[in-house]
Amino acid sequence: MKLTFNIHENRFGECRHEIVGIVTEVGSKVEKLKVGDRVGVGCMVGACHSCDSCDNDLENYCPKMILTYGAPYYDGTTTYGGYSDVMVAEERYVVRIPDNLPLDAGAPLLCAGITVYSPLQHFGLTKPGMHVGVVGLGGLGHVAVKFAKGFGVKVTVISTSPSKKKEAIEHLGADYFLVSRDPDQMQAAMGTMDGIIDTVSAVHPLVPLIGLLKSQGKLVMVGAPNRPLELPVFPLIMGRKVVAGSCIGGMKETQEMIDFAGKHNITADVEVIPVDYVNTAMERLEKADVRYRFVIDIGNTLKSA
Amino acid sequence: MKLTFNIHENRFGECRHEIVGIVTEVGSKVEKLKVGDRVGVGCMVGACHSCDSCDNDLENYCPKMILTYGAPYYDGTTTYGGYSDVMVAEERYVVRIPDNLPLDAGAPLLCAGITVYSPLQHFGLTKPGMHVGVVGLGGLGHVAVKFAKGFGVKVTVISTSPSKKKEAIEHLGADYFLVSRDPDQMQAAMGTMDGIIDTVSAVHPLVPLIGLLKSQGKLVMVGAPNRPLELPVFPLIMGRKVVAGSCIGGMKETQEMIDFAGKHNITADVEVIPVDYVNTAMERLEKADVRYRFVIDIGNTLKSA
Repeated sequence: MKLTFNIHENRFGECRHEIVGIVTEVGSKVEKLKVGDRVGVGCMVGACHSCDSCDNDLENYCPKMILTYGAPYYDGTTTYGGYSDVMVAEERYVVRIPDNLPLDAGAPLLCAGITVYSPLQHFGLTKPGMHVGVVGLGGLGHVAVKFAKGFGVKVTVISTSPSKKKEAIEHLGADYFLVSRDPDQMQAAMGTMDGIIDTVSAVHPLVPLIGLLKSQGKLVMVGAPNRPLELPVFPLIMGRKVVAGSCIGGMKETQEMIDFAGKHNITADVEVIPVDYVNTAMERLEKADVRYRFVIDIGNTLKSA
Repeated sequence: MKLTFNIHENRFGECRHEIVGIVTEVGSKVEKLKVGDRVGVGCMVGACHSCDSCDNDLENYCPKMILTYGAPYYDGTTTYGGYSDVMVAEERYVVRIPDNLPLDAGAPLLCAGITVYSPLQHFGLTKPGMHVGVVGLGGLGHVAVKFAKGFGVKVTVISTSPSKKKEAIEHLGADYFLVSRDPDQMQAAMGTMDGIIDTVSAVHPLVPLIGLLKSQGKLVMVGAPNRPLELPVFPLIMGRKVVAGSCIGGMKETQEMIDFAGKHNITADVEVIPVDYVNTAMERLEKADVRYRFVIDIGNTLKSA
């Protein structure tokens, strides 16, 4: 069930796990993929395959899930993600990339895309006419806007930076933009949202976000602040509101996500770089100086580097 | 659509809104109730009847919901709850009490009962075989155990007081008891619960409760601490866990709850008192010296007091 593929693109940053390429070899038990197929691997490359989560196509919540980078693999070796021109992976953890999706701009969907697609689906935030907020406009946030628009919902970007308004509305297609530090703007939007995808991993207040939700609204956290946040309980109770977390998605849903992206021409905004630009890119990443993901062109630049 | 009924019992405490009696008079447009019926009124007596919440039988989440006690009524008068031997209420806010349910021990279900029944239903915690935790064993917690057992789920009471173990298991029928201050007991139960109904309104840590949940598990708060709680985000994300609030229930669901209670012989544990015992009862309430609700026998004791 193993297959080998040449890695063409590899998004990096803290994760090293948005990898795409072309299949060069398949094991005898591989059923759904063949040599020449355009494929991708996301955040995980293994799991136990016998727990409730695995049985329900939620390998991402399996306690024995194996990360694509820096984790002990079944055989005891360490996983190294996409920093290579060749990768071997189990078929279950490989998705087919739709023909119309460019490999480079499609790659980041394998983590960023599924991270926002899955909670939109799972928490029922995909019905046309709904209103969804997206907090933070970075790697996750910008694809959250695109997927939410793909579902046909009304999207408001919520950000501390007024300077991102033009980008959010004109470039990404958001319907509205809210400056979270502007109490008047926030007040006017109270109780209007069916759900919010919160991509911010810095410590930030939840009270105003919970206030933006309608009754029964859902605030889904996909960024993990390193300290606990303050949770006001009374407003949750008074509107049967939900605060939840969500972590990537299972492999079945990851394939659905990438197929949806193909159908709706959703890609990440990327800057493709050669391998020898990595150190500079890391420095720029520190300063958040990228819109929105670097993608390393391993296939064309590793051998010459 | 108005009906008048003699109040027989009236649970009190912070709420004054668990009221039962017998219908003595009905308005010309009353359809579902008649003179002589055993009825009850819970926490609310009015709402706007035109918002999304009202349209979906969730008057409890209507922004214009009118509380049974201490709120301005449609006509500008103040609502006084059950401190009276007669009450007039709109039919929509009156439920029929099943014949087999005693009025006194049934009364507290109109707030405490629906407060725990609704989240068990709404958050899908009613499937036999599921495992539900109940935090706190007071007015809400003791009926939460009874309803959860009524649904056929496995119930664990989680409490700071080891002394409540016997009561929880032998008297209320819980399956297990966890002392929340015992790290070994808590550790052994990690990841075993589908949901938790948290009835505690004092500030308390959420980390251990979130830890008790399985992947996809739901922690539902029905007690409102007066300060924000610390919410750890990472464990929510890693298990797609949910922290939510829930506030009583709509009138349709309140009728379903009381019918369910009738079918499963679920009542609150009460101490029935005469009106002239109220001041003593208030003092005992301060010391949490009641198992678990005082009920005032207004019908038999008000006139003689």
